[in-house]
Amino acid sequence: MSAPAAPTTTRTYSYLGPAGTFTEAALAQVPEAVGQNWRSVNNVGEALDDVVSGRSDAAMIAIENSVEGGVSVAQDALANIPGIQIIGEYLVSVNFVLVARPGTRIEDVRVINAHPVAYAQCHLWLDATLPNHEHIPASSNVAAASTLFEGSLADAAVAPPNITKHYDVELLAENLGDNPNAVTRFVLVSRTVVVSEPTGSDKTSLIVELPEDEAGSLLSLLEQFSTRGVNLSLIQSRPIGDALGRYRFVIDADGHIRDERVADALLGVKRFSPSVIFLGSYPRADKAVITHKTRYSNEVFADARDWLRGIVSGETASSD
Amino acid sequence: MSAPAAPTTTRTYSYLGPAGTFTEAALAQVPEAVGQNWRSVNNVGEALDDVVSGRSDAAMIAIENSVEGGVSVAQDALANIPGIQIIGEYLVSVNFVLVARPGTRIEDVRVINAHPVAYAQCHLWLDATLPNHEHIPASSNVAAASTLFEGSLADAAVAPPNITKHYDVELLAENLGDNPNAVTRFVLVSRTVVVSEPTGSDKTSLIVELPEDEAGSLLSLLEQFSTRGVNLSLIQSRPIGDALGRYRFVIDADGHIRDERVADALLGVKRFSPSVIFLGSYPRADKAVITHKTRYSNEVFADARDWLRGIVSGETASSD
Amino acid sequence: MSAPAAPTTTRTYSYLGPAGTFTEAALAQVPEAVGQNWRSVNNVGEALDDVVSGRSDAAMIAIENSVEGGVSVAQDALANIPGIQIIGEYLVSVNFVLVARPGTRIEDVRVINAHPVAYAQCHLWLDATLPNHEHIPASSNVAAASTLFEGSLADAAVAPPNITKHYDVELLAENLGDNPNAVTRFVLVSRTVVVSEPTGSDKTSLIVELPEDEAGSLLSLLEQFSTRGVNLSLIQSRPIGDALGRYRFVIDADGHIRDERVADALLGVKRFSPSVIFLGSYPRADKAVITHKTRYSNEVFADARDWLRGIVSGETASSD
Amino acid sequence: MSAPAAPTTTRTYSYLGPAGTFTEAALAQVPEAVGQNWRSVNNVGEALDDVVSGRSDAAMIAIENSVEGGVSVAQDALANIPGIQIIGEYLVSVNFVLVARPGTRIEDVRVINAHPVAYAQCHLWLDATLPNHEHIPASSNVAAASTLFEGSLADAAVAPPNITKHYDVELLAENLGDNPNAVTRFVLVSRTVVVSEPTGSDKTSLIVELPEDEAGSLLSLLEQFSTRGVNLSLIQSRPIGDALGRYRFVIDADGHIRDERVADALLGVKRFSPSVIFLGSYPRADKAVITHKTRYSNEVFADARDWLRGIVSGETASSD
Repeated sequence: MSAPAAPTTTRTYSYLGPAGTFTEAALAQVPEAVGQNWRSVNNVGEALDDVVSGRSDAAMIAIENSVEGGVSVAQDALANIPGIQIIGEYLVSVNFVLVARPGTRIEDVRVINAHPVAYAQCHLWLDATLPNHEHIPASSNVAAASTLFEGSLADAAVAPPNITKHYDVELLAENLGDNPNAVTRFVLVSRTVVVSEPTGSDKTSLIVELPEDEAGSLLSLLEQFSTRGVNLSLIQSRPIGDALGRYRFVIDADGHIRDERVADALLGVKRFSPSVIFLGSYPRADKAVITHKTRYSNEVFADARDWLRGIVSGETASSD
Repeated sequence: MSAPAAPTTTRTYSYLGPAGTFTEAALAQVPEAVGQNWRSVNNVGEALDDVVSGRSDAAMIAIENSVEGGVSVAQDALANIPGIQIIGEYLVSVNFVLVARPGTRIEDVRVINAHPVAYAQCHLWLDATLPNHEHIPASSNVAAASTLFEGSLADAAVAPPNITKHYDVELLAENLGDNPNAVTRFVLVSRTVVVSEPTGSDKTSLIVELPEDEAGSLLSLLEQFSTRGVNLSLIQSRPIGDALGRYRFVIDADGHIRDERVADALLGVKRFSPSVIFLGSYPRADKAVITHKTRYSNEVFADARDWLRGIVSGETASSD
Repeated sequence: MSAPAAPTTTRTYSYLGPAGTFTEAALAQVPEAVGQNWRSVNNVGEALDDVVSGRSDAAMIAIENSVEGGVSVAQDALANIPGIQIIGEYLVSVNFVLVARPGTRIEDVRVINAHPVAYAQCHLWLDATLPNHEHIPASSNVAAASTLFEGSLADAAVAPPNITKHYDVELLAENLGDNPNAVTRFVLVSRTVVVSEPTGSDKTSLIVELPEDEAGSLLSLLEQFSTRGVNLSLIQSRPIGDALGRYRFVIDADGHIRDERVADALLGVKRFSPSVIFLGSYPRADKAVITHKTRYSNEVFADARDWLRGIVSGETASSD
Repeated sequence: MSAPAAPTTTRTYSYLGPAGTFTEAALAQVPEAVGQNWRSVNNVGEALDDVVSGRSDAAMIAIENSVEGGVSVAQDALANIPGIQIIGEYLVSVNFVLVARPGTRIEDVRVINAHPVAYAQCHLWLDATLPNHEHIPASSNVAAASTLFEGSLADAAVAPPNITKHYDVELLAENLGDNPNAVTRFVLVSRTVVVSEPTGSDKTSLIVELPEDEAGSLLSLLEQFSTRGVNLSLIQSRPIGDALGRYRFVIDADGHIRDERVADALLGVKRFSPSVIFLGSYPRADKAVITHKTRYSNEVFADARDWLRGIVSGETASSD
């Protein structure tokens, strides 16, 4: 990561707090953030606003999880806020516990406070274990637990496992998550900077709008990548918001914008689309090395350009 | 619409209540539902469960809105509950008002109760008018208002315009919606029945899973439609939920499963995909007549089959 | 091969003669033709006319060779003569010798009689060995040699290796062919019959015209095959003949018209094209077994049809 | 045309002679060739060799006609001879007359001398008018007539209409051509030079080899053009000659190599193909103006490059 601020200065990182959230766990994976100033905020908008305004050097936000899909607020914010860029990607295993005020017994639980995403991920367990429960939505996973002590109507809360380090709660049950492999993907966002060098294991994120009123335009968009040998690991639609049926696409492409094939695909996409937002090229959390056919290598791109230049200039002409 | 129950019996329709919701407004558009039994339920799962269990003949649910995109809970329910089918589509203009307990002045409002989707749609107005407001999420647009009288911490609620017919609230402001053209799309769902006849203005809804670990498989899926001249009005990704990056696609195709080109595209999709769910073919709410090139007409499909049959049987052979 | 005449009757096979031609060598590979009546004709048109008129049961004609490509006369004849069908495919290695009247020395050869295709295949050898030679075109490879004794101006002739069995010629040189792997592909043609059963190693030949005035129509044609997993071993353009730039395409597809994926591709092609000629499905000369992904198997096609039928009929409905 | 030699020097143009051929008629359409040295040669190979060796400045050769398709010898020569380039395109209407030695009556004609291509174009007329005729192939359309006076066995010859200006022949019949709209396309070929400026009505010719052993590679080749909005007016297969089933493709694309979309398509083709031969970008004979969607204009290509450069350099970053 090319640090957005000088290394001698203390840097500030915003994250969805308070202490104990999964977002905090993601930020703990960033070596450059260790020992720096961590700023707890209330929502994604606030985190990104910190970056744009310069209050923070970077912000950690959840962008995709294996149960709920793209976190729509984050995707929409990235689509609408100019001047920011993804510089890193982090994965956090997601599981949940059921906690309550000390002395509560699980058979007495009727009203449960839970962030809607967490609630969706624990739905099967809750339906089976507490069939008559009622759900009150919370603003965050930690808030679900913390408000137990602030006059909440809830008897119990769904919370991250490390909540017990931060609050004096009673642990009623563990491993509530319906999917034991659940993972949430976080991205670290900074102001726009010079794109870092490729590592060979990179990802490039885009938000692309389709041309209007044209049959097959998604097909044409995908061909811009496939004809350059660029694989997509994510393609997700999000409504643009101005009319029913109008969508933009959030795309993660394998490779780095400094890879010739990715750059060429982006040129094709840019010419095709009325609006392309480059969100960043950054090292992959899964460390997977991106491979491709020889025909899509940087050398082949450079050779083709040399060939074309020779033809146009007539350099390859026979002397006479 | 082919009525799912005999006309002499009273039919039951489930909808997200209570009275005053947009879903109720959608149900009011169904001629067959007039004068029948309307059953108010608390969420989409309950509505669909009514249909599956036979408690209701049909259920009205929100499936897409112009601001928030596919209503994820509804899409996931349709993907996971067998034996149900979409039989109709309805559009409702969406706008919001700000209401409060009688005597409240707008300048005194600090805490606002609002369903998260409604809140997102009124975000700009609220930020501009009440910059210091705090948001409490409600379980429905009507509940946001009704809980004002049940000890809620909220000072005001975001609610549908006709809320004033049902509750004794004070109207503080109108037209809160950021997008004046906002529309929500609802579908009427019944148990699986014989598919109704095409009307010439139809839509076919599917949920399709992509083959795993195959580059370009979304491209291949889209080609199944484009090579048969079938246009898609909606393609939206939803996470399957078992692993990060695994998605299924919610698709609305122009035309009816009894149109040859749509049927042939569905055969292609079925052979290609590990899982296809047919959600229904039904008349379009926008009444748009679907046109296509002559080469995709039913007659051309029938002629091609005759031609093939003649070849294989040697019927077209010269006599000797 | 399903014999076009009853086995107890003597069958007649037409071929480009006289004895000694490569076409005769191809006919010698047909087990059913052994001991039957072989009819030597002067050109492809005559051979096919024999079949159409019933004078012959089948005709052997050259259809493609590795140097000259599609034999245009044969391809155009197949495109224009209705009621005929390819029922078999045969490969003959092609090489040439230089022969002359007895007593001729190679250093005395100046004028060479050769069929134009043979001449093209021996061009490099002739230019290197006899740089000052002159070429007189012959109507067939054997005629090139036989006319040496009929007052021809030629000093020598390019001919098939077995010419020395049939004519009293002096062998001046062997292995004239520029390409030692040269092979000519022949097809056996009969009147239209019931298509034979698939063998698992089959080829299907078509002639397809593209829709006029439509950008990308060749791409669309190829997609009809690729979306059904059908590989093409040959695609060759031939002018339609009515205007400059108007072409039809000669196509060899892997598989048999009784294979579901091939039949479905043909249906797609038929709907798309203003003119499709089915030339036949027949066992491959190279005996290569055609493989395909599971998704393109006959079972998958049948399952998809069952699935569609169930949906349309509502058979998959939940009972109530 | 950028003249390959200084304008004050006399230039030499090679063409398939002798005087009276269609090729001569094509050369007569070239303004720069008027009053220069015209060199009659015996075949296409000789004409191109004149250019390569410098004996001529340019050569006129037939490349496609509406009946016989690509003139295979010319296409193969262009594929195999380096250092030459197409600099112009010309169309000549093609029709034929039947001529004989003075005193011959049409009812006495039995043996007809004709170039094989001419013979094929007059086949229907000859079969109808002289059903018992015999055909002797000639080396050119003019030679067919001229050899009538050199001891030919032929009674009559098929020749171009203006043959009567050059030889003392008797005109037996006119308008023999089966297709009254028959046209032959000629190209003017010079040594490789700096490509001329686009005129807005241009054509770019290529010869492209497909990657081996790869299903769908022709489809991928065509996509290189379609994704850049480049239409193809000709795509024709020619055998490479080393093995059965190996083909290269002769392609005429709308537009000029100095058009950004064509250049970008050529880069894509070059990266994809094991062998690409650029034959030239030159003004179209039909003067058709090439149009395209705005998204494929030079400005859009330049804008996309600027956008990409800004992103990679971080120039679009917010200042801080």
